[in-house]
Amino acid sequence: MPCITAPSYSYAIVPFTFISPKSTRISPTAKFLTKHNRNPLIETISMSSNNYQRKRVVRATVSIEKETPEAERPETFLRGGDGDEGVSSVRVRFEKMIREAQDSVCNAIEIADGGAKFKEDVWSRPGGGGGISRVLQDGAVWEKAGVNVSVVYGLMPPDAYRAAKGAATSPDQKPGPIPFFAAGISSVLHPKNPFAPTLHFNYRYFETDAPKDAPGAPRQWWFGGGTDLTPAYIFEEDVKHFHSTQKQACDKFDPTFYPRFKKWCDDYFYIKHRDERRGLGGIFFDDLNDYDQEMLLSFATECANSVIPAYIPIIEKRKDLPFTDQQKAWQQLRRGRYVEFNLVYDRGTTFGLKTGGRIESILVSLPLTSRWEYDHKPEVGSEEWKLLDACRNPKEWI
Amino acid sequence: MPCITAPSYSYAIVPFTFISPKSTRISPTAKFLTKHNRNPLIETISMSSNNYQRKRVVRATVSIEKETPEAERPETFLRGGDGDEGVSSVRVRFEKMIREAQDSVCNAIEIADGGAKFKEDVWSRPGGGGGISRVLQDGAVWEKAGVNVSVVYGLMPPDAYRAAKGAATSPDQKPGPIPFFAAGISSVLHPKNPFAPTLHFNYRYFETDAPKDAPGAPRQWWFGGGTDLTPAYIFEEDVKHFHSTQKQACDKFDPTFYPRFKKWCDDYFYIKHRDERRGLGGIFFDDLNDYDQEMLLSFATECANSVIPAYIPIIEKRKDLPFTDQQKAWQQLRRGRYVEFNLVYDRGTTFGLKTGGRIESILVSLPLTSRWEYDHKPEVGSEEWKLLDACRNPKEWI
Repeated sequence: MPCITAPSYSYAIVPFTFISPKSTRISPTAKFLTKHNRNPLIETISMSSNNYQRKRVVRATVSIEKETPEAERPETFLRGGDGDEGVSSVRVRFEKMIREAQDSVCNAIEIADGGAKFKEDVWSRPGGGGGISRVLQDGAVWEKAGVNVSVVYGLMPPDAYRAAKGAATSPDQKPGPIPFFAAGISSVLHPKNPFAPTLHFNYRYFETDAPKDAPGAPRQWWFGGGTDLTPAYIFEEDVKHFHSTQKQACDKFDPTFYPRFKKWCDDYFYIKHRDERRGLGGIFFDDLNDYDQEMLLSFATECANSVIPAYIPIIEKRKDLPFTDQQKAWQQLRRGRYVEFNLVYDRGTTFGLKTGGRIESILVSLPLTSRWEYDHKPEVGSEEWKLLDACRNPKEWI
Repeated sequence: MPCITAPSYSYAIVPFTFISPKSTRISPTAKFLTKHNRNPLIETISMSSNNYQRKRVVRATVSIEKETPEAERPETFLRGGDGDEGVSSVRVRFEKMIREAQDSVCNAIEIADGGAKFKEDVWSRPGGGGGISRVLQDGAVWEKAGVNVSVVYGLMPPDAYRAAKGAATSPDQKPGPIPFFAAGISSVLHPKNPFAPTLHFNYRYFETDAPKDAPGAPRQWWFGGGTDLTPAYIFEEDVKHFHSTQKQACDKFDPTFYPRFKKWCDDYFYIKHRDERRGLGGIFFDDLNDYDQEMLLSFATECANSVIPAYIPIIEKRKDLPFTDQQKAWQQLRRGRYVEFNLVYDRGTTFGLKTGGRIESILVSLPLTSRWEYDHKPEVGSEEWKLLDACRNPKEWI
């Protein structure tokens, strides 16, 4: 989900998901949403499953105020009052984490690029929240690198909230719209050299307030995110290094995380009309709330901090390799697939396009250049074929 | 709708539209479809309107057999029996017309390109129907030119048929699935020179049989299509020439056609998330059945025959103009918009991707190369700005 954060990456936080945990029946609210799904506020209803449990997931959308540009980065995008629980609140620490990750990743990219600088756009919303978009374009190493953070406040339909928290409120109670908070970092890095892979990562945190007219009702929260690698050519040592770094980050928290999130990633980045994945995967998770909240905050932080050690060593090794026009054209064809996935399937992008988000931020994930050849088929056994084969038949790299 | 015909352009014939003419209330069938819209056979329900009347339009989808490659072009893709009404049947004459148009357009393109040749793929379906895809790639003048014809037989849900023909059958009569026939030509031509415009045209004919168990029930038929121009730079004389040719073709049949279909075109090729059109329009019409059938067949033929005189003289004037890297980059940015429209909005493309059509034929409409720059804004008053302005504020060219 390349456009989960940033000016209108903010929009891409939604469609968020409301989960009725440990239930396989459709909740009355999900039925309500199904029945009324022509309401523009309600986007899609879908069911998600993972290795551990089957969940009914209700996806709903919200309207968010339009953003305005800012001359300077504020200390925080949080609303006054959000820090009242102290520096220990997850909101406060998550915002701090993503802003530090943005700084460190941009810094590492600028150093590796050797001269080009990120252009920064800061923006805010009247009711609170905002973000920082940074884009480096046409550098020595990267043709386009975007690293964005955003903090969003919004209101979600009350029925969606009821679906999320199960039977705690009786259906005839009518709470008002539910305030929510969402924050995230999102980045796509497209290098020039066809042997240097594209990287995408995104980490996000979502939290509801209690309804205004039911202050004691429980809050809901979720973490989501992932880091994935999209090369045009396979250097097995690079892919192993990348996946090992993801596994190390996962293993610090739960031995089931890497295999589970690796498969989730292969499933998510599937280009159905091509029967192939966008790239060679990594990790991906969404709607994660069935672990300790502190543990998941630490896990998301560890993942964000793993981006530089997972990626930059690969770039250093590949950025100056000589290549042919044919190899560049193959990279461009794979960039075309990236465009197809993002415009056709990526939840954040397709949602952002429909809801009128800041288009330049939503589409910063698209490569600077891409290519579509009619009926291109790599020769069986060629390096191009090997990449395609690995995109069609996901492998265990470690 | 660039992918209305061809191997799985065939799929793009559907979602076809079923119209309850002269009615603004939702028919019982439309209500049925609304209620059951989780059925994968039923794609979307929408309402279309035009200058002349408001219609309730029920869109439904069908399943069509997978195609197989053929070594040779058959005399006809029509099923045995389809010609029994003689050479005068609309099916027979429409297939003849689109195959002649394909030959003449491909011939004109090859001559103007000065050497490159179209690659041809022929295919058929076991139960009847098939098509011919022709693609010229990386020529001297065109970077990608696709010209496809297809003939499709399929079955539509009986309720959709009832909605289409109104109250002629009582709702408790239960006809079987309705056989339909669809044929079309579809083409997208992307030149290399940034001063030479992209052209798209598509003409299609749709017809239902009576239900098998109600042989006397009335047939339904519709015509659709259009021709539109997408330049990266405006040469006013070119755009005037193009629109004048469309108007001349229209005026031979009805003085209201050009203004109505010109506006329809501007409305259809709207990229909502950019608030701009894909290009400078032309004509577009769909679901057309409220004129004499013979007249509309002649009109579609006239439109298809107008493609060469509308387009080739512009290409001859612009194909060898010198250009800068900046002008080429601007063309590439506009190609990016073409990709955005086709992957996000175009009915035929989005439908084809969802239903598993022949992907290479669906996406032959995409340019060979395209580009996305972050936050690119042409200088006010520049030639690039003038194009963007005309895409944002459609003009009357003649």
